[in-house]
Amino acid sequence: MSQKILAINSGSSSLKFKLYELPDQTVLANGHVDRIGQRNSTFTFEIHGKQNVQAEAMKDHLAAIQAVVNGLLTSHVIEHKSEIVAVGHRISHGGRFYTHPVRIDAAVKAKIKELSVLSPLHNPVNLAGIEALEKILPEAQEVATFDTSFHATIPAKAYMYGLPYSYFEDHDIRRYGFHGPSHEYVTLKARELFGEQQTHRMITCHLGNGASLCAELDGKSVNSSMGFTPLAGLLMGTRSGDIDPEIIPFIEERFHLSSEDVRKVLNQDSGLLGLSGISNDVRDLSEAAHEGNSRAQLALDVYVHQIQQYIGAYTTDLDGLDTLVFTAGVGEHSAIVRQAVCAQLGYLGVKLDEAKNQANALSIEAPDSQVKVAVIPTDEESIIARDIIQVLGLN
Amino acid sequence: MSQKILAINSGSSSLKFKLYELPDQTVLANGHVDRIGQRNSTFTFEIHGKQNVQAEAMKDHLAAIQAVVNGLLTSHVIEHKSEIVAVGHRISHGGRFYTHPVRIDAAVKAKIKELSVLSPLHNPVNLAGIEALEKILPEAQEVATFDTSFHATIPAKAYMYGLPYSYFEDHDIRRYGFHGPSHEYVTLKARELFGEQQTHRMITCHLGNGASLCAELDGKSVNSSMGFTPLAGLLMGTRSGDIDPEIIPFIEERFHLSSEDVRKVLNQDSGLLGLSGISNDVRDLSEAAHEGNSRAQLALDVYVHQIQQYIGAYTTDLDGLDTLVFTAGVGEHSAIVRQAVCAQLGYLGVKLDEAKNQANALSIEAPDSQVKVAVIPTDEESIIARDIIQVLGLN
Repeated sequence: MSQKILAINSGSSSLKFKLYELPDQTVLANGHVDRIGQRNSTFTFEIHGKQNVQAEAMKDHLAAIQAVVNGLLTSHVIEHKSEIVAVGHRISHGGRFYTHPVRIDAAVKAKIKELSVLSPLHNPVNLAGIEALEKILPEAQEVATFDTSFHATIPAKAYMYGLPYSYFEDHDIRRYGFHGPSHEYVTLKARELFGEQQTHRMITCHLGNGASLCAELDGKSVNSSMGFTPLAGLLMGTRSGDIDPEIIPFIEERFHLSSEDVRKVLNQDSGLLGLSGISNDVRDLSEAAHEGNSRAQLALDVYVHQIQQYIGAYTTDLDGLDTLVFTAGVGEHSAIVRQAVCAQLGYLGVKLDEAKNQANALSIEAPDSQVKVAVIPTDEESIIARDIIQVLGLN
Repeated sequence: MSQKILAINSGSSSLKFKLYELPDQTVLANGHVDRIGQRNSTFTFEIHGKQNVQAEAMKDHLAAIQAVVNGLLTSHVIEHKSEIVAVGHRISHGGRFYTHPVRIDAAVKAKIKELSVLSPLHNPVNLAGIEALEKILPEAQEVATFDTSFHATIPAKAYMYGLPYSYFEDHDIRRYGFHGPSHEYVTLKARELFGEQQTHRMITCHLGNGASLCAELDGKSVNSSMGFTPLAGLLMGTRSGDIDPEIIPFIEERFHLSSEDVRKVLNQDSGLLGLSGISNDVRDLSEAAHEGNSRAQLALDVYVHQIQQYIGAYTTDLDGLDTLVFTAGVGEHSAIVRQAVCAQLGYLGVKLDEAKNQANALSIEAPDSQVKVAVIPTDEESIIARDIIQVLGLN
């Protein structure tokens, strides 16, 4: 029986997975569980291109992972749980400890828990995923892939904040950057597709419900828009991104907010949802704006403007731009956002082919564009799988 | 007897002034009071190019302004206080109320006071200056020039934060931008010197103890790095500039800080001083870095990097760059900072003439630079004087 490995990508209320067969890393099954902890959870499961959606209340990540493993068994992708020899987990925050993926043991779990203070929405859920797998697949080895590791190459001039130095020295307060597996995946893919020369100076835009940009020089991250936590950078579905820091003591005093209240406002009530008042989803906002909703249009305008600001800023890290990559939900599917972002980048030689852009083609620049503009579907699970194989020496 | 007008530029512990003679706006005297409220206050006074420095404890802005008026009398620049027919004040925050200079009356003073909540370090001091002048020169008319007015042309996409919309609608939380008189002065000067075509797309860098950048399209502000308050943007002498907002609830909880404590840390203990641990002054840091102090070098590196980031970002607001202007203490005098900033702007066609840069020349770009790079000493008082004349119809 061939060995199989499972890549788990847990979000706060969702989970994606892919099951790979070794040694070829053939994808045997993949799927996602959405709305974990709610009554209307769904489990979407795909084998050989055939999709199956089940609605079933799943109260936590343990229930979700149990459903995944049951699905693999009942559909006969695996006959026995022991076929899955290893599991890889995407972990949000690795702090200053993890610049590479590691095998998970008690010490690693303790660190992930300790780092929850830096990523309160994600690290606890990631840990719940690890613990669930240990219960369900006690024989499998586990590996952690950190969202922050890809950004370990960011230089001090970009990762230091203008704060008292002791905050950095004694409390690890610095920019870390997140979405590492996604930025890394599309970076590797772009370099494979377009060659090293054309991707010497590259910016990758991961635009999902969470969103971050990354500047890469020769494939190495040199700046990224998320910071100490995944709240920072550009505004997102429900997150504020960067704001004037003085707004926080101001609203604390005016609205009598605690630190925890502030965290909730900035993480859950802000961003596209807060501005528009209707949705955190760019598809909904594009539709509403098209129908004349001015606040939906405003939310999109601010979003696009902030993406442009980061592209401009990161071009100074790179002293120019060879390739611009869009990925994740919005990046892969919103031709409107891509078109609007690129509209102010003429000075860099960026020029889109509108038909290709509308078609979400792999390469959407016009023939006379000086910059390659690519739409690359992300695949974080393939980075998790690669890490499992490397860390455990499975190949 | 000719009419004279007095421009007052109050900082938190300092005050600059210029006395002009109408109708030609000849500068009759100028000077500054430093370290107001401390024992070692100094009063520097210049008439016809001759400088006179007096050391004298001045406990508040009333005492400082009294010293200024006394100096004008005893040096016979004026023979009687009634020769000063009008006084103009630079006011930090005009909120959404003042997009133009206004004549000061009781209602305006009440608004300036009300807006102190948005600029707690500056508006109260500005108001103290107004009240001091009313006591000392009760006959003179008074005009307010707001730091925020020049930025009234910033579009919503750049002034809206990714926060709940009610914060903007009901509480005026948005980007305002500051240093208006300085950005406006150097903008007008650059357009006069280099012509409209060469200054179509311009970025002005006001780099003093406070620092902000401004993007101007045809001389109108379209973005600026300070925000709701003068804390935002790039790190400054003692101010943090933008940081991941989640750092604030984090440090509040970890260090048991109140909102007021946070304000103090971010405004007074951060920036170049906080990072370097030795000084808020770029001259001190350049010297220390030259002598091998690595934290001084780090502080300078972060500072330069953040300036670069804003220049890059603002180039997307302008879709390119024709002229880059440096002004204020650091901008006018630090060849090292200007050189380091421009080192990553080759892709925009920026190229310095190192000898001209070292000499702080007016125009420091190389002959084959595609972007004009200018060093223009700022003169906020001349904008205050212009506003007095316009608002009161004195010409």
